[in-house]
Amino acid sequence: MSKLVVVALGGNALLRSNQKGTYQEQIANVTETCQALTDILKRGNRLIIGHGNGPQVGNVMLQHEAGLKTFDLPSMPMDYCVSETQGSIGYLIELGFKKVLAQEKINRNVVTLVTQVVVDENDPMFQNPTKPVGPYYTHEEAEEFAEQTGAIFREDPRGRGWRKVVPSPQPIKINNIEIVKTLTDAGHIVVTVGGGGIPVVEKNGVVEGVEAVIDKDLASSLAAIQAGADEFYILTDVPQAYINFKKENQQALGRISITEAKKHLADGQFTEGSMAPKMRAAIKFVEATGKEAVITDATTLSDENGGTRIYAE
Amino acid sequence: MSKLVVVALGGNALLRSNQKGTYQEQIANVTETCQALTDILKRGNRLIIGHGNGPQVGNVMLQHEAGLKTFDLPSMPMDYCVSETQGSIGYLIELGFKKVLAQEKINRNVVTLVTQVVVDENDPMFQNPTKPVGPYYTHEEAEEFAEQTGAIFREDPRGRGWRKVVPSPQPIKINNIEIVKTLTDAGHIVVTVGGGGIPVVEKNGVVEGVEAVIDKDLASSLAAIQAGADEFYILTDVPQAYINFKKENQQALGRISITEAKKHLADGQFTEGSMAPKMRAAIKFVEATGKEAVITDATTLSDENGGTRIYAE
Repeated sequence: MSKLVVVALGGNALLRSNQKGTYQEQIANVTETCQALTDILKRGNRLIIGHGNGPQVGNVMLQHEAGLKTFDLPSMPMDYCVSETQGSIGYLIELGFKKVLAQEKINRNVVTLVTQVVVDENDPMFQNPTKPVGPYYTHEEAEEFAEQTGAIFREDPRGRGWRKVVPSPQPIKINNIEIVKTLTDAGHIVVTVGGGGIPVVEKNGVVEGVEAVIDKDLASSLAAIQAGADEFYILTDVPQAYINFKKENQQALGRISITEAKKHLADGQFTEGSMAPKMRAAIKFVEATGKEAVITDATTLSDENGGTRIYAE
Repeated sequence: MSKLVVVALGGNALLRSNQKGTYQEQIANVTETCQALTDILKRGNRLIIGHGNGPQVGNVMLQHEAGLKTFDLPSMPMDYCVSETQGSIGYLIELGFKKVLAQEKINRNVVTLVTQVVVDENDPMFQNPTKPVGPYYTHEEAEEFAEQTGAIFREDPRGRGWRKVVPSPQPIKINNIEIVKTLTDAGHIVVTVGGGGIPVVEKNGVVEGVEAVIDKDLASSLAAIQAGADEFYILTDVPQAYINFKKENQQALGRISITEAKKHLADGQFTEGSMAPKMRAAIKFVEATGKEAVITDATTLSDENGGTRIYAE
């Protein structure tokens, strides 16, 4: 029986940190990633792709800023910026897949859905914006910008400057998830919840965008739960999660129970803004479904026992 | 029996020429347009929305230009720019529909597909780029830009400056049109071929983006044909097409045969870059399907005999 597999791609699936992110670079990167995903398809499985948009939405925000300064073009809020990256990144993923599908003679369509993700307007994170987005500013620039736009800026802990911070509320509903499911059931590869989804609040069926960013691993995890996925993979740039990371007694985590995963998380073993949110997203999926979640990199994906695999007890 | 209706929205459905195109303006405009489309839904019909992106993709190009100059961000080709606007405009159309659907208590989903449209790499238009895109430049700026990027610039006939021109090839295939059809058959409103579709060429299943813009009315017409639509509407800012436009004997066209439409077109009765391409797109649909195509504005849409209606003989 064909399994439904959800894979969350990190931003570096498209844009590596040492690259400027040209069109050609992004296509080359994404094609490599799609190649790594063909094993899932060869096993006859259905596939949903979620993806990040960190570097891309950062560029979009800079382009909006430059467009405002240079040409007095209206600047757009986060929900709009995310929707732009869903279009562009979805398109690039489609290009990558079409190429490897043709090479591997796999007959599948790839389809990208613009996807809203509903958050709760009473989510406490709205009172406590913590997610840094967009470019770094000097303190002076940040203060000026804050005054002009009402945005909130915080100093980067690694001293790289000041960045806008926005709330990162919990995703509570993936809009159109039943459509995603119908399309995967028909064998199509579906790209959805790009950049964590377009953040919206819903009241009596009416939807409004909000100034927020939803964690893409959490959104992909929720998509996996709500679509009834059998397996959930979080792709990152390391093959496994570690405890005692970068210490003498560093230890890679293989197959671990959800209890162990929760304990390591509570012990602060995973870096916030990096492995910790991935672990939380994986735990959410395992807790809700009783099925396995895997954190690994593209290279290790084909190894059915590779990566850090969190299982239910 | 429920009809399948395709509506092509003009750029001004979202952004009026006297507006800057803020987020709020675009949402207000699109909601008004969606309101006008509810009649189609109330009759129980299925609905596909195609849309233009002229002002929006112009802004994206300016933002990329400003981003390159100000922050040295990589500039992106037309296919990528179009994909960005498919995300953002699709999202805004979804917002507009959700609002009016809730008000009218119509229970439908709206879903936006990122959509590639295949063109022929041997299309003669690639030798003759004519479609102006993006901002106006001075002659000097245009020459400098042409040298830097290899782009081709032409002087605006109305003396507003120089603009980049790209080829406008014929659309020959809407990728994923069978998915569009499946989704509309299930009752969902589908937004597709945004901005005329992302222009691609296809070789042995592998897809590559091309530097081109596909006419959004022609792409919507092809989508209507390939999806097996029963009715095709081209929404614009006038209620009807005219012959002897702005002359003493100006005459609005009501219900006309395809032969009359072709004759008026051959006689140069319709302005190029405005009514002429709409008329060609309407004729294509009528010719291929034997069904009716309508050119009208949002206000006249609810009048089942309004607009310029082209019928087969």
